[in-house]
This record gives sequence, structure tokens and C-alpha cells, in this order.
Amino acid sequence: MVGEQRKKIIIDTDPGIDLRWIRYLIGFDDYVDDAMAIFVALNSPEVDVIGLTTIYGNVYTTLATRNALHLLEVAGRTDIPVAEGTHKTIMNGTKLRIADFVHGKDGLGNQNFPPPKGKPIEKSAPEFLVEQAKLHPGEITVVALGPLTNIALAVQLDPEFSKNVGQIVLLGGAFAVNGNVNPASEANIFGDPEAADIVFTCGADVIAVGINVTHQVIMTADDRDKLASSNGKLAQYLCKILGVYYSYHLDAYEIEGVYLHDPTTILAAFLPSLFTYTEGVVRVQTNGITRGLTLLYNNRKRFEEVTEWTDKPSVKVAVTVDAPAVLKLIMDRLMES
Amino acid sequence: MVGEQRKKIIIDTDPGIDLRWIRYLIGFDDYVDDAMAIFVALNSPEVDVIGLTTIYGNVYTTLATRNALHLLEVAGRTDIPVAEGTHKTIMNGTKLRIADFVHGKDGLGNQNFPPPKGKPIEKSAPEFLVEQAKLHPGEITVVALGPLTNIALAVQLDPEFSKNVGQIVLLGGAFAVNGNVNPASEANIFGDPEAADIVFTCGADVIAVGINVTHQVIMTADDRDKLASSNGKLAQYLCKILGVYYSYHLDAYEIEGVYLHDPTTILAAFLPSLFTYTEGVVRVQTNGITRGLTLLYNNRKRFEEVTEWTDKPSVKVAVTVDAPAVLKLIMDRLMES
Repeated sequence: MVGEQRKKIIIDTDPGIDLRWIRYLIGFDDYVDDAMAIFVALNSPEVDVIGLTTIYGNVYTTLATRNALHLLEVAGRTDIPVAEGTHKTIMNGTKLRIADFVHGKDGLGNQNFPPPKGKPIEKSAPEFLVEQAKLHPGEITVVALGPLTNIALAVQLDPEFSKNVGQIVLLGGAFAVNGNVNPASEANIFGDPEAADIVFTCGADVIAVGINVTHQVIMTADDRDKLASSNGKLAQYLCKILGVYYSYHLDAYEIEGVYLHDPTTILAAFLPSLFTYTEGVVRVQTNGITRGLTLLYNNRKRFEEVTEWTDKPSVKVAVTVDAPAVLKLIMDRLMES
Repeated sequence: MVGEQRKKIIIDTDPGIDLRWIRYLIGFDDYVDDAMAIFVALNSPEVDVIGLTTIYGNVYTTLATRNALHLLEVAGRTDIPVAEGTHKTIMNGTKLRIADFVHGKDGLGNQNFPPPKGKPIEKSAPEFLVEQAKLHPGEITVVALGPLTNIALAVQLDPEFSKNVGQIVLLGGAFAVNGNVNPASEANIFGDPEAADIVFTCGADVIAVGINVTHQVIMTADDRDKLASSNGKLAQYLCKILGVYYSYHLDAYEIEGVYLHDPTTILAAFLPSLFTYTEGVVRVQTNGITRGLTLLYNNRKRFEEVTEWTDKPSVKVAVTVDAPAVLKLIMDRLMES
């Protein structure tokens, strides 16, 4: 596959492994693995990663930027620009919900990797997103793996952004299931509900991959052992940082696997047929006890009155996933050298 | 079945057929038929209807009271007391969402029935509920078919009410599906979200039957014809008031049936095995775009932080219904003389 045919993607990412979800949970549960998602993308011939943009979430944005640069150095892809994102939620100054007491100071399991040699570009993440979408209208897929603040800022920065961007594939929401921050809300949406509502209603071609889908894709300890036994350098690297967490899981909580939220979402960006979708208008509740709740209106009912969903653009929401195929693809891509 | 063995039920009801839901909808859709539910209860040997309490919803409370008295006269059961309920939502003064321009002035399809001879008792609905629950501790089942204001007022009036009442079976909520007032909210909960939240968390034995379940029970025009051809006086009466609406449906919207929300809920009060249930904590969103949304926490996940669902009492939420059995029972009971 030659470069010209590849799908251009920008990954908006909060790399840093987050133990928050693990620590309090029994059985399989969540942690976000942006590193794995980035590596899957870099090893996928279908896509050309033309940039990373960083966002708070698992770690603060500054650390996310440092980790993004580090991961690109590990992968030998320092040609890919990193644009640093915003440090605050879109409504400004909301206290960020980041628990650095659990994920290690570096957000990569306290492995004390050397500081990256590279630096982020001068442009901010929203500026970079706007620029690239304008440069390649209809061709850029933005894969958003953290809170949606950068994307919402791009929408606000350029009224044409939602038309220029090819597609926004986002990891976020809990559709018709409980959330993972609280019963109502999934972590990425909860991170900035106002931003999420802007993105869902901006009119761009949006695909939402929620935890109702990603909770079906589980990497077991056996899969991890398979990764470890491969010669792929990215697999080797991942096992180094993953090992800590699996051990932690097994010792403390008898957890035998981890959800692959982020790599699953990456695949949705270029292998959409691995999923099925429903379409409708998604709005985000921004206050009260269900702050961060994503509510899909399936367009099947009509209502007496104008509602907050009326005349808003529809998005696609993933409903099912071919989990074995997704897991196999992720494993295969990670084990390539 | 002798009287002593019958389950004592009080029906909290907003009788008056409501065309609001019909008017704007394509395909099968909602209207609440409290009259049918009351008749099913009166013809069911398993239960002893010891009172009706009235509430706004389909019509204003005053008219609901008049209609409740009228329906008892039609059924020859003027021995059953009617206690008039509150006229306002629990937070007071909220503008009621009642559309009398569509359901007819009398809320019973403008049939111009004679005014009832009976009168409501002196006690208010909440007072009656509290009194009866205290008189027969653990034995009273309250079936709530409208907004939950009276029940919430009973909870507030007597701290022991939620212990004294045997069970509260309520028609309300849209669990993991869109609502019928707007994408987030079902009509009864939307009618008084604050009251609903009080009832769901009061600690009583609560069963919620939401539109996710009642939308599975549909009475077709054929069923209506079968009712009309029976000799049962209640069936005859119902066909008189139902005919108008079926015709209206068929002519204007090609709708071939109606949902049996209320009679289905009545059956849940004494034939619970017709349903399956899940258990969890239900909270109601009381503001923002999802005001009136019911959110069930299934108790399967643990969260890092204390949530608004933590340490609240669980309720049962109906998940599936044996719809053919429910429809047959409703038909059979209505066709008895």
C-alpha cells in the first residue's frame, strides 16, 4: 500500500497507563492503553499517522506530551509531529480528575524511561487539527482517545473544521450501559462533558465507540505471554510496561485481563466493518447527578414538542464488535517488528 | 379466593385517555389507559382494590378524581373509596404538562358521561396511603400509574411509610431505551422527577415497570373487536371510549394498535412471574436536558469514588414480559361480566 492510498490519521491521545480504574474493581476492568493504540496505528499499513495531539486524562497534558514523544522515539517514528493540547477543560478551570498517586509519576508505570529528545511543534493541538483538516479537506481522520477538549476547541476555532475533517472516531460514552466513572458516565466524556456535547453536535462525520463495545475486547494474560514471546520491538516494549499492571491485577484483584479500549477504537478508524453501528443524535448531560451521560436518540420516535435532540446532526454509535477479529488484529500488528 | 387471601391494592391513577402521545407519532404509540387498568384490577380475584388515589397526568387532578368516581360507578364498585391527590408537583408550582386540547375536556374522549354521584373521601391521597399502610403493615401494594407525587408525599408525611407499605409497583421510566416525552424521559417520571427520585430511594420494596417493557404489550384492532363482541359490561364500556381513539389512529396515522402500559403494570402487582427483573439503584436526573431520565446502577461495577448511587436502596426493574400471556389475561379479565 503506497502512502497516497493510506488514510491520514491524527491521534488525540493521553498516553500514560491509568491504574485508577483497576484499583477499585473486581474482575476485568478498565485501563486505557493509548501506547498500545499508537503502536497498532504505526504498524498498520492502512493508515498514515500524520500527527499526535496530546490531552490530559490519564495524566496531565505536559506529561502526555512527553510520553507521546517518548513512544514515537521507541517506535523510531520521530518524523511524526506532536502538538501539545490544552491543559484545561473547555469551560476553563474545572478541576481535572487525574489521580497521579496511582499511575506512577511518569504515567508509564514508573519505568524511568529517559526524557524524550524531541519537542512538540509550535502549534497547539487545536491549531494543528484545524490546519491539517484545511490542508487535506475530507481526508483526515481524527481518532480521539481522551477527553474531547482539543477537538471541541478546533470546532470553535474554525467554523469550517467540522466540514473539513474527514471523520472523527472517538472513544467515549456508555450507551445503554453504566459508565466507568460512576453509573452515568464514561471517563473520557466525564473529563469534559461540555466539549463532548460540542463534538457530538458539530455536524462532522462522527463515530463513537463506547465502553458498551470496548468492554467486549479483552486481552488475557495468555495473550500478553504471546506478545512477550514475539520478537516485535513494540510488543517487547509493551510487555515491559504491561507486566507491572498484569502482576498488580493478578496479585491484588485476581484480574486475568484488560480491556483494549484504545486499540479497538483505532481499528474503527480504518476497519469500520469490524463493527456495527446505529445512527442518531447524541447529546451529553452537563450537570446534575448524570453529568457526562451520553444519550442517543435513535430517531425512531417522534415527540410532541421540540426537544434538545431535534434538528441536531446524527452520528454513528458502535453497537457490536467482532471481538475475536479485533483482538487478533491488535496482537498481529503489535507483534510485527 | 376469599377476601382475606386477596392482595390489598391501592391504585394511584390519572384516569383520562391522553391523545398527546398518539398525535405526533407514527406507528404504535403510547397512551395511558388507567380505566382499563382499574377494570382489570376490579375483575381480578387475586386482588382486593381497597382504594383509588388520584393524580394529575393525563388530566388535572380534579378531573382525574371525577373520572375515578365515574369509573367505579360504571363498575358498580362505589364501595371503593377515592382519595384526591395533590394538584402540584412536589417542588410546588411547577407548570403541569397537561394538554387538554387533545384529550377532550373530560379526559374520557368527550363522551359526556353524567357527573358522578359519589365524592372523594375527606382524607388526601397521601394521608390515605399513610393510613392504610399503617393499618395493614406489609400488606398494601400501591400501584402507581401516574407521576409519583402522592407517593413521595406519603414518604415525607410518615417516615415509617416506606417500611409499612408492602410494595410499590410503578409504571415509570425508560430503562436503556429512549423516553416518550423526549429522548431522555418517560412521561410519568417527567411529570415529577423530584418525586420519582424520592420514591426510588425511599427504601420500600419497589418494582418499576418502564416503557422498555410496556412497549412489548400491544392491543391490536382485532383484539378490540374481540372485546366489543363480548358481553362483559366493562369491555362494552371500554370499547365505547376506545373506539374513538382507534378510529382516530387508523384514519390519521395508520396505527393498528395501542400499548397497554397501565393494565400491564397492574398485573405486575399480583402476577410478578409474568415478568423478569433486574435489581439495582435507580436515581432520577432532575435538571438539564435529561431531566426525568431514570438511571439504573446494576451494582456490578465498583467505582473509585462515592457516587450518587452509593449506599442507596435497590429496587427491582422489569426487564422482560411474557407479552402474549399478559395480553390474554387483560382480555380475559375485561371480558368477564
